[in-house]
Amino acid sequence: MAPPLTVTFAGGATGPWRIESMSSISGEALPVAERLAMDVEPMVRRDVAWSLRGVVSNTRYTTAEELNALNVVSPPLRRPEAVCAALIPIRKSDAWWSMAQDQRRAVFEERSQHIARSLRYLPAVARRLHHARDLGEPFDFLTWFEFAPQHAAGFDALLAELRASEEWHYVEREVEIRLVRDET
Amino acid sequence: MAPPLTVTFAGGATGPWRIESMSSISGEALPVAERLAMDVEPMVRRDVAWSLRGVVSNTRYTTAEELNALNVVSPPLRRPEAVCAALIPIRKSDAWWSMAQDQRRAVFEERSQHIARSLRYLPAVARRLHHARDLGEPFDFLTWFEFAPQHAAGFDALLAELRASEEWHYVEREVEIRLVRDET
Repeated sequence: MAPPLTVTFAGGATGPWRIESMSSISGEALPVAERLAMDVEPMVRRDVAWSLRGVVSNTRYTTAEELNALNVVSPPLRRPEAVCAALIPIRKSDAWWSMAQDQRRAVFEERSQHIARSLRYLPAVARRLHHARDLGEPFDFLTWFEFAPQHAAGFDALLAELRASEEWHYVEREVEIRLVRDET
Repeated sequence: MAPPLTVTFAGGATGPWRIESMSSISGEALPVAERLAMDVEPMVRRDVAWSLRGVVSNTRYTTAEELNALNVVSPPLRRPEAVCAALIPIRKSDAWWSMAQDQRRAVFEERSQHIARSLRYLPAVARRLHHARDLGEPFDFLTWFEFAPQHAAGFDALLAELRASEEWHYVEREVEIRLVRDET
């Protein structure tokens, strides 16, 4: 197991992903940017409108049974056909973070079925979660999704399901950034 | 709820805590230092032998029932009589971090009784946990303990109990630093 990977998402003038839209779902928006770069090494980039860091860390809620089910159907990132992507930075409320582990788990899965719902969209949608709260970042999580154009409607349906769930009562800031890869 | 507090422990020539001993329990030791400073703001300190950062973050395993039990008896830091302290940096193995949440919880509490054992030493021993793994630090956790001299033997007994538990099979590096406060 490698040490946790720190990833920087930089919105600005450069990067392989073209930003198609940026929507503020809750709370403050992010400044407009044209392109997105995802760096795993520290990089100096010019013309950056915003820069968000997160860590690919250990799972926090997933049980062994759920992890096995996910591992069987989870695709890797960078599939050639997966030219559509979404970056969704989220911050949860103080009410969320002050709950104990079993209370957060109950909202997350027993009542909101975050994992069960997501499983139905696999292997179409590849996903990587980055934890940002402990880094002192403005968001708690940065989730990155990749999928082929024919799965965009399914991805929209997954977002709608999750946003209607009890877990989302605790989301106080959310930005949805949709992207297309036009450089390899 | 305040944003997560980032704390830097600096071992060197300055700071209110005098280091009485530094023992490597497992794995590589830390360089010898005379004194310890605990900074919550970025500080430039000279003559630093080592510097370790961690974040006071949300609980990861504690249930609501356990959290209530802990909150009733947990003392604050900096009690005037608590002039003894320990800083115990720990790194856990890949085997630990690759387990799912329910498996880690089962080892941590159901089989090792980490919380139940610690509760018996409250309110004598004040404790603050700092998460360091996601920061790319050499340790995963930095735990800080404060107690009065008459509770030092009890604190030693708690350490012995925890180190004999199944959870400690997953500890691959541990340093025990014992300190006395002689500056206020």
